Amino acid sequence: MNIKQFTAEVRSAVDNRLNQLIESHIASSSLKEAMAYGVLLGGKRIRPYLTMAVAELCGAETNDALDAACAVELIHAYSLIHDDLPAMDDDELRRGHPTCHIKFGEATAVLAGDALQTLAFEVLSTNLETKLSSQRRIAMIQHLASASGAKGMCFGQALDLDATGRAIDELELEKIHRHKTGALIRASAALGVLAGNDESQQYLDHFCDFASWIGLAYQVYDDILDVVGNTEVMGKPQGSDEAHHKATYVALLGLDGASEKLLSLHQQALLSLNKIPYNTQKLETFSEILLKRDH
Amino acid sequence: MNIKQFTAEVRSAVDNRLNQLIESHIASSSLKEAMAYGVLLGGKRIRPYLTMAVAELCGAETNDALDAACAVELIHAYSLIHDDLPAMDDDELRRGHPTCHIKFGEATAVLAGDALQTLAFEVLSTNLETKLSSQRRIAMIQHLASASGAKGMCFGQALDLDATGRAIDELELEKIHRHKTGALIRASAALGVLAGNDESQQYLDHFCDFASWIGLAYQVYDDILDVVGNTEVMGKPQGSDEAHHKATYVALLGLDGASEKLLSLHQQALLSLNKIPYNTQKLETFSEILLKRDH
Repeated sequence: MNIKQFTAEVRSAVDNRLNQLIESHIASSSLKEAMAYGVLLGGKRIRPYLTMAVAELCGAETNDALDAACAVELIHAYSLIHDDLPAMDDDELRRGHPTCHIKFGEATAVLAGDALQTLAFEVLSTNLETKLSSQRRIAMIQHLASASGAKGMCFGQALDLDATGRAIDELELEKIHRHKTGALIRASAALGVLAGNDESQQYLDHFCDFASWIGLAYQVYDDILDVVGNTEVMGKPQGSDEAHHKATYVALLGLDGASEKLLSLHQQALLSLNKIPYNTQKLETFSEILLKRDH
Repeated sequence: MNIKQFTAEVRSAVDNRLNQLIESHIASSSLKEAMAYGVLLGGKRIRPYLTMAVAELCGAETNDALDAACAVELIHAYSLIHDDLPAMDDDELRRGHPTCHIKFGEATAVLAGDALQTLAFEVLSTNLETKLSSQRRIAMIQHLASASGAKGMCFGQALDLDATGRAIDELELEKIHRHKTGALIRASAALGVLAGNDESQQYLDHFCDFASWIGLAYQVYDDILDVVGNTEVMGKPQGSDEAHHKATYVALLGLDGASEKLLSLHQQALLSLNKIPYNTQKLETFSEILLKRDH
C-alpha cells in the first residue's frame, strides 16, 4: 500500500469539503477557477490526514476535524501557488499539471494564493455548526497563523530564497525545513488536538512533536528519493534538486548518512507517540508508509 | 486641516503598534524589512482611523481598538504590495517611494504580502490582554476574512483585472469598487463596533453603511482628483488613471456628474450616522475632510 492509497478516504472527504467551500461561497470568476485548480489538483494530503487522524484519536467531531484539515490544506495550497511563481521557484509543472500561473496567468495566480490563505481563516472562524468553544477556535486560528506567517512557513521560504546558490550546513538546512514545511505540519497535528475533547489537550505537545519529526524525516526521505527514486513516484524529475543547486541531506551527509538520519528521525517520532496513552497504531502505520520503511 | 493632520494621532498610535508587532515578533531577515517597509511607509491610515473612531464611540478598550485597527491596515498593506507587482499593476512608485518589489525584489515582496496577511489574523487571535469575549474575537476574524478574500477585496481585484482595457458601465465600476476597496473599509467600521460594548452592537449595520458610502464616495473623489488635482496632493501623477485606460466616474459621468455623485454618496453616509444615537460629530468631520468638501 502506498501513501495515496492509505490516505484515500481522508483525501476524498477533504476534497469534497474543499470543493464545497469554494463552490458554495465564491462567485464565478477566473479567480474561483484558479483557487479550485490550485487546491483540488491532487496531492497526497499528508497534512489533512494528520489533522483528521489526530482529531479522531482526540475524540473530535468529524465536521470540526474536517474544517481544521481543510484550513491547513488551504494554507499549503496557497503556498505552493506562490512558490511556483516565476519570481520564486519558476516552476511550470506541479504534480504533472501546468502550475496555476501557467494556466491562469500570473496576476490571477497571485490573487488565488492570497484568497486561499484568507479562506483558511474564514473556514475556522465561520463554522456555524461547531460545538467547539470559541476559545478553542481562537487557539486553532492562532496556531495556524503562527505556523504560516513570518515566524513559520513564510520565514522558511525567505530563508530558502536567501540560501539559494550558496553553501549551507546541516543546521541551516534543518532550520529552513523546520520553518518552510515543518511548522505547518506541526500545526496540522495541533489543530487536530484542538478540535478534540478536553482530556486530550494535555497531549498537544506530544502529537505536535510526532508531526515535527515526521515532517523533517519526510524532507530527508524526499532528498533520498531525488537521488535514488524515479519521476513517477515523486512527481518531479529525478535529480531536480541537484539541477536547481539546492542543498540536500544527501549532498551534506551522503546517501548512507541521510538514510541513517531518516531512521533516527522516524524513531524520534515514534518515541513521541509512545508518550500518548491512546492507540496510535494508525499514526505509526501512516509514518511507516509515508517514509516507505519496511515493517 | 487636511486628512493627514486630522488622523495624525491615530496614525502615530497605529504606526507604533504595527512597528512593535513586527519588531518584537519576527526574526531579522529581508522578509521582516520588506514587511515593515510595506506597512510603515506613510499612508493616510483611513481604515485604522475609522476603526479607532468607531471603537471609541462604542466604548471599546483602546488596546482592542488598536489591534483591530492594525489588523485592517495589515490587510490593506499586503494588498498594496501585491497590487504593485509587475504581474498586477506594475507600479514602481507608491507614496513617492520605490514599491516593495523594486526595493526588495519580487520574491520577497510576494512573501512580505503573504506574511502581512497572516499577521493580521495572528494579531486578532493572539491578543493576550484582551477582555473581549472569544465570540467577539471570532466575529472580528470572520468579518475581516470575509471582507478580504474571494468574496471581498480579492474578488474586486479580480474583477478589476478582468475589466482592464474594455469599456464598463457605472454598475460594473461600482461593483469593482465595492469589493476591491469597499469591503475592507466596511470591515474597518465593523471591527470597531465588535471591539465595543454590548449595547453598541445593535448599530453595527449603520456604522458599516456609513463606511461603505464613504468608501465609495472616496473612489469618486479620487477619480475627480485625478483630473483636477495635482500630484502633490494625490501621491501619483495627475491623469494616471487615463494613462492606464482605467474606467473612472469622471469618464462615465463627466466632471459635473461625478461631483453630484460624490455629494449624494456623502449625504447617504451622513444619513447612516443619523440612525446612531451617539455623538458622531468626529466621524462627520472625518468624512468632510476626507472628501474635501467645504463646511
